[in-house]
Amino acid sequence: MAMLTSVSGFPEWLPEDQLVEQRLVEILRQKFALYGFTPLETRVIEPIHHLLMKGETDKEIYMLRRLQADPDETDKELGLHFDLTVPVARYVVENRSKLVFPFRRYQIQKAWRGERPGLGRFREFTQADFDIISDSKITMLDDLEIIELLAEILQTLPIPKVHLLINNRKLLEGYYRGMGLDNLTPVMRIVDKLEKIGPAGVLQQLVEDAGATPDQAHKCIQLGQIRTGDPKALISQVHAAGVEHPLMEEGLEELVFVLEALQADPEGLALADLSLARGPDYYTGTIFEAKFAELPRYPSIAGGGRYDNLAATVSGGKLPGVGVTVGVSRILGVALHEGLLRASRKTTSCVLVALGSEEARTRSVKAARALRQRGINCEIYPTGDKYGKQIRYAAKKGIPYVWFPAEPAGVSDQVADRVFDQVRDIRSGVQVEADIDTWTPPEDDRRVQIGWDEEAYQRVIHNPIYFGQQTAER
Amino acid sequence: MAMLTSVSGFPEWLPEDQLVEQRLVEILRQKFALYGFTPLETRVIEPIHHLLMKGETDKEIYMLRRLQADPDETDKELGLHFDLTVPVARYVVENRSKLVFPFRRYQIQKAWRGERPGLGRFREFTQADFDIISDSKITMLDDLEIIELLAEILQTLPIPKVHLLINNRKLLEGYYRGMGLDNLTPVMRIVDKLEKIGPAGVLQQLVEDAGATPDQAHKCIQLGQIRTGDPKALISQVHAAGVEHPLMEEGLEELVFVLEALQADPEGLALADLSLARGPDYYTGTIFEAKFAELPRYPSIAGGGRYDNLAATVSGGKLPGVGVTVGVSRILGVALHEGLLRASRKTTSCVLVALGSEEARTRSVKAARALRQRGINCEIYPTGDKYGKQIRYAAKKGIPYVWFPAEPAGVSDQVADRVFDQVRDIRSGVQVEADIDTWTPPEDDRRVQIGWDEEAYQRVIHNPIYFGQQTAER
Repeated sequence: MAMLTSVSGFPEWLPEDQLVEQRLVEILRQKFALYGFTPLETRVIEPIHHLLMKGETDKEIYMLRRLQADPDETDKELGLHFDLTVPVARYVVENRSKLVFPFRRYQIQKAWRGERPGLGRFREFTQADFDIISDSKITMLDDLEIIELLAEILQTLPIPKVHLLINNRKLLEGYYRGMGLDNLTPVMRIVDKLEKIGPAGVLQQLVEDAGATPDQAHKCIQLGQIRTGDPKALISQVHAAGVEHPLMEEGLEELVFVLEALQADPEGLALADLSLARGPDYYTGTIFEAKFAELPRYPSIAGGGRYDNLAATVSGGKLPGVGVTVGVSRILGVALHEGLLRASRKTTSCVLVALGSEEARTRSVKAARALRQRGINCEIYPTGDKYGKQIRYAAKKGIPYVWFPAEPAGVSDQVADRVFDQVRDIRSGVQVEADIDTWTPPEDDRRVQIGWDEEAYQRVIHNPIYFGQQTAER
Repeated sequence: MAMLTSVSGFPEWLPEDQLVEQRLVEILRQKFALYGFTPLETRVIEPIHHLLMKGETDKEIYMLRRLQADPDETDKELGLHFDLTVPVARYVVENRSKLVFPFRRYQIQKAWRGERPGLGRFREFTQADFDIISDSKITMLDDLEIIELLAEILQTLPIPKVHLLINNRKLLEGYYRGMGLDNLTPVMRIVDKLEKIGPAGVLQQLVEDAGATPDQAHKCIQLGQIRTGDPKALISQVHAAGVEHPLMEEGLEELVFVLEALQADPEGLALADLSLARGPDYYTGTIFEAKFAELPRYPSIAGGGRYDNLAATVSGGKLPGVGVTVGVSRILGVALHEGLLRASRKTTSCVLVALGSEEARTRSVKAARALRQRGINCEIYPTGDKYGKQIRYAAKKGIPYVWFPAEPAGVSDQVADRVFDQVRDIRSGVQVEADIDTWTPPEDDRRVQIGWDEEAYQRVIHNPIYFGQQTAER
């Protein structure tokens, strides 16, 4: 094993964990289709000038070069994408005349960043993005479709309890302008740190770094501390500071619309959180973020919002939209690493077809064919090992059933004579005669079950790595 | 659009084509599970010394480097994998103690090669590999499982007519040794070109480059010309040359076993082809390759076989196995490029929920929720545009149904009063009253249908690019 090199930040999982990941991705795909989002996959590379235009990300990019490339080759101008936004922007502009707008796409792909790995952060990671992109205008109904889909996903996935925090950039901008603060970007960035550095820290930074008066800073904190799932409470709390501005009212109305629509969801899922800022240069209306409610130090697992122009970096014509990134690797990072989710077996097989002897292989092949014909996942044990060994193999992989084809006397030395096929439930050890053309395993056994380990979860939410004091992240 | 750069060899498809690709991958996943193969995904990068050990592939590798990397960083020693064999070998050795053998895994992932793009050849491409890997021994039942699964896949995928060509390395080796030819690798390589350069060319090269006598060369060609789906004919044709060798008989027996098991498949699918050689350094028994039967110049779409040791490059302990690579991009290359496969629509949506006016949006939201509750894929039209425009949007995307929620008088100016919901089939234009809680579209409309275009196929099989003379490939 001397040659093996595990590479930091590039996680790989065991087969049983990959079955969990696959189920999560299946749920995502099914929900995306339910809401009319169409699958998109883009090439993993982009020209470097696309990747760099998004801002201060240059340090994170993996560049490509062919091992035997000529020094003047253009390949050296290609890099791996670090998110799925840059690629979709380029794709939509490139294919603009062939797409029908509003374009609803989802995209589940890997992305790469050369940054230092940390809690929930990898160098290679899978994201699931979904966006509604228009060539003319986006409405609050689009915002609602995106948020309802995200809320449905968060409730369907077998994951820890989640908060879906929602805010509105117009509300923030109007509020700050309404009290005379026009230096918006630093203000939002500082208020966004409310949970991390506390009110006193925010107050100090607003005064020192954003030019706010103590009274203005106090009002900023007052707004940032609003966190409620109740639309009526939200309205009265926003108005409590006495700040007035038409843009604030417009944003408040939008936020109330979204919050009201989510009232059907379980209480505590959706919350207006007025400290939330998210990417000040990009989002222009509704913004939101999903966090594990009981793992405060774990980074957000989804985030997104409304933007005026997807493709500012690639084209002149505007492409407004609204969308989300779900951090699939981030969810799996804690769920698999801590064993919160467990597959009921290590394989897709529901049945192991035993092999009595090399001479009897035709009967095993026929049995497997008959099961597969009826959609029952199975595999054949490849040698005439003792049945005990074959059963142990099934047990090690968690295959629930072993099928023994009938064997006339003398064919195998393992049984004297078996007139009918038999099937054994390896969990109970019960073995009964069965007919290959009609026997059907219970629905729950047909496919891998994904189980939630509440004990492991309780351990995790009391683990200081995930829940400790609010110290600055590296 | 000045900034856009389409990158040669990195194909991307339109949404309707991506729906076709997704269906193909769905079929693959379902069949893999049916045969008890478990999904595996490995990181896309490998240390350069793993990638280089497989042989003469150094020119094809994409190396990585972080844009802002220090000159002495180890990242520069990483490259993108060029197949899925090197990664699985490394993964299996790395996790050997945690896996249960025989390990049956499938892996559908992209791989990258920096070579010149050509007919069916890309720089970024998707492969679907499946292997049975043992830590002790592989049997003919494993070979059969792999080939039966491949045959089932080839028959289930909506693709052009396929030949599954099968051979056996022991048969070849025994035959050549039996007549005194021990310089096996060049002999197999030359006979493998039989279809491309013809018997005369093969004869000449065998004599000139492989040291064969004209009589030996003649017998090589005689063997290489055997191509039959009939096990009995195969046996007599192999024996016709009078060559004798125990290894030849062992290989013939294995080949006959496989061919007999495939007799249940449609005639002409599985053929013994004794010119087939495949990777002389790697395979040791059964070998096979799938080609489009009526596109002789198109490269093979799947290939694989039995090997003695998967991981010679990474470890001491042997890992024998049998497996296949299916070229997903290669299949899509001709199927999508030539329009052989077409999706029935450009979206997953089965229903467009119309919006009467901004004020009526609650009713549209409720209608969409009711449909989704029953698993019917739908989307909401986001603005109160004229219904004609909303219907045209559905038509452009190929969404078969438009749902109009009931509207009390005065709410919208589009209809005076609509007491009941209505649904319109946009293909027939028929619009009827319907109940949101019971209306169900026909099964065929619920999901995207993938159609085969026989006319396009007829055009393709007469196109000299795919069919023409057997000239050497670039």
